[in-house]
Amino acid sequence: MDNQNTNSPAPSRRSLLTAGGAGLALGAVAAGGAVALVSSDGDAMEPAAESGGPVPFYGEHQAGIATAVQDRLHFAAFDVKTDDRDAFVQLLKDWTEAAALMTEGRPVGDGAYGGLAEAPPDDTGEALGLKASRLTLTIGFGPSLFATYGKAFGIADKRPAALVELPKFPGDNLDRTRSGGDLCVQACADDPQVAVHAIRNLARIGFGKVAIRWSQLGFGKTSSTTPDAQTPRNLMGFKDGTRNIAGTDTKRLDAHVWADGGDGAGWMKGGSYLVARRIRMNIETWDRTSLQEQEDVFGRDKGEGAPVGKAKERDEPFLKAMKPDAHVRLAHPDTNDGATLLRRGYSFTDGTDGLGRLDAGLFFLAYQKDPRTGFIPVQRRLAAHDALNEYIQHVGSAVFAVPPGVRDSKDWWGRGLFDDTASTKGGA
Amino acid sequence: MDNQNTNSPAPSRRSLLTAGGAGLALGAVAAGGAVALVSSDGDAMEPAAESGGPVPFYGEHQAGIATAVQDRLHFAAFDVKTDDRDAFVQLLKDWTEAAALMTEGRPVGDGAYGGLAEAPPDDTGEALGLKASRLTLTIGFGPSLFATYGKAFGIADKRPAALVELPKFPGDNLDRTRSGGDLCVQACADDPQVAVHAIRNLARIGFGKVAIRWSQLGFGKTSSTTPDAQTPRNLMGFKDGTRNIAGTDTKRLDAHVWADGGDGAGWMKGGSYLVARRIRMNIETWDRTSLQEQEDVFGRDKGEGAPVGKAKERDEPFLKAMKPDAHVRLAHPDTNDGATLLRRGYSFTDGTDGLGRLDAGLFFLAYQKDPRTGFIPVQRRLAAHDALNEYIQHVGSAVFAVPPGVRDSKDWWGRGLFDDTASTKGGA
Repeated sequence: MDNQNTNSPAPSRRSLLTAGGAGLALGAVAAGGAVALVSSDGDAMEPAAESGGPVPFYGEHQAGIATAVQDRLHFAAFDVKTDDRDAFVQLLKDWTEAAALMTEGRPVGDGAYGGLAEAPPDDTGEALGLKASRLTLTIGFGPSLFATYGKAFGIADKRPAALVELPKFPGDNLDRTRSGGDLCVQACADDPQVAVHAIRNLARIGFGKVAIRWSQLGFGKTSSTTPDAQTPRNLMGFKDGTRNIAGTDTKRLDAHVWADGGDGAGWMKGGSYLVARRIRMNIETWDRTSLQEQEDVFGRDKGEGAPVGKAKERDEPFLKAMKPDAHVRLAHPDTNDGATLLRRGYSFTDGTDGLGRLDAGLFFLAYQKDPRTGFIPVQRRLAAHDALNEYIQHVGSAVFAVPPGVRDSKDWWGRGLFDDTASTKGGA
Repeated sequence: MDNQNTNSPAPSRRSLLTAGGAGLALGAVAAGGAVALVSSDGDAMEPAAESGGPVPFYGEHQAGIATAVQDRLHFAAFDVKTDDRDAFVQLLKDWTEAAALMTEGRPVGDGAYGGLAEAPPDDTGEALGLKASRLTLTIGFGPSLFATYGKAFGIADKRPAALVELPKFPGDNLDRTRSGGDLCVQACADDPQVAVHAIRNLARIGFGKVAIRWSQLGFGKTSSTTPDAQTPRNLMGFKDGTRNIAGTDTKRLDAHVWADGGDGAGWMKGGSYLVARRIRMNIETWDRTSLQEQEDVFGRDKGEGAPVGKAKERDEPFLKAMKPDAHVRLAHPDTNDGATLLRRGYSFTDGTDGLGRLDAGLFFLAYQKDPRTGFIPVQRRLAAHDALNEYIQHVGSAVFAVPPGVRDSKDWWGRGLFDDTASTKGGA
């Protein structure tokens, strides 16, 4: 069975492990396993996210932004626990190496059982035998990393002007224990066990240097970056992300998502800025609201997802036909000087609260060229006027500078920020 | 596209909705969609759980017990909020009708947008367009239903002798807000959004009569009922459920799982008893434990899952070769007078606790003929001696009487318990 690896479209961790060596295993992945973006002729009813193959880790941009949205999320924000620059840089290098392995569907280090019997295994093992499951790992640096460790790490003058703390918006009810963070790692995969395994093993590698501040599991992606696939529905039952930026639309990605490295933050060229918001939905109230009110609130109909007065989901919205406080009208680029976000959010359900209400909603993730012209002005408008505010509440918030991609096996996450002698554009 | 429904192996909710009528839609499901148990010639590397079709709702036993384990879980325990017998019986009938629809991949009632614009939609809508995803819904009745509502509902003398409250075991650290419940519904599906949708809509139908007491999301099934498929791994990285009862093994199911209706509880014949335990793992401690210690604790090796001294996962364990406190040795039927449980547990990760530790572990679900000869004696032994106790803690607990299956569209969940004139064996 193991001899057939090279014919497999999606090699499992087990088959890689038993293929006889890393070189051969890598060859198998490269030959048969690469599954990245969805082509525009994909089956419209069958999200390509069900594929189990690997997404390439190395590239100009980090994977997990323009990548076709995977089914599951494990997002973790970390606090730094060391002021030793060398130790922190070593952690970034160790994380990069582990991330490259795990996104290929391989365990970290010596694996889950291949090392010394007297030592804890390098890998925790629960993903053995599972496919790569399109795992992507995407790192970001929060404002507090620069504010708290800027001097110790020698990076104070490299904080991008775009990496601002978000203002307090009307209606915000933020839980500090679900907000902020010096670092973040976004793990997306089609199998939750693969995403959870990745965050757990990174946290383990970081023991003593970083600690998880908060984390969020998500499912039911609420925004597709593959407009040819069926648009997912959020927990309010509406299609979400109809007009999202396609992962293959390089023109819109360049215009709205990829940072240009200006404002003295050349190391961010090819990166992006991530805004994360935990948005709780008042599910029980929403469920007792009439269909008409629900459709008025969104500005789209519930069944097809068509804008008010239009027949089809993808018809161009006529904003003036919507109520002035309709969500789609207020969030539309035409209402916001063209501001456009690449959304990558997930639904969450974290059990029930003390009052027996579902603790559920949308974990909103948006990538953009600059939050000052992206999320912030849009959210100012929504927070002030959106009819949806009666049914939602923002309870967590964070913002991160997401550096460009890792070019090859000698490059590492954040090298442009920490390594003054290295170019952020060239290879290693 | 919609005309091709009958050729589709897994009709989506959308295709069913647009097929032109319930009768036609049902025909499409019956003709092309039925996917239930995995045959023994299934692909051993590809869990059949990835199928998106429906599992039949009607039958001698409830689905969700012997059914091949699905990928995701949403488990909810409810408290009853009415002492009106008629209202409660009507709820059970309404739930049964909704469950039959949702397990077929259809919305409840008039759907998510087909009703009056002035009224809230009957269905919350977030599963529109998703496949049936092998959803199963399994109901159970807790001891407190009989203790609290026995008189009001006229069921006090029908409490099965086997439905005992679990004793306190050594080491238990139970959170009352995650324990007990008058009722439970176990929702399993290959898509978490489908499972969450089902529990949410049942909770909504039950508004004013029942309220969710606690709920638990799970992923990464830790016990397979399809021994020909790859054995899943728990969050300790070990294969779990190697010797579990196969869903197709009617002999072992009859011997260990299906209740025989004795002890004056004839209405339970063909049902089963469910024990649910939230078992938190001390992940960080485990991850710092040597491979040798980990393997000693379980009594199996980590890579292959073979019992101590044996070469292959499915080799018969030689218990005396294991340490006296090894988990596999203590839990083995030979150590427990033959006691055998059908396990159906899921891994869980509920973020991090106040100390930054992963709140993760195993949500243990076990079905059995009688807890007094099943879970209770096994757990007494484990709680007293199991080497694993250093790394786990039981933090939630519940037990339920799971009635037999719903025979047809005129039958309903719990009819045998509430309807004195009806036979629990015949149809309606």
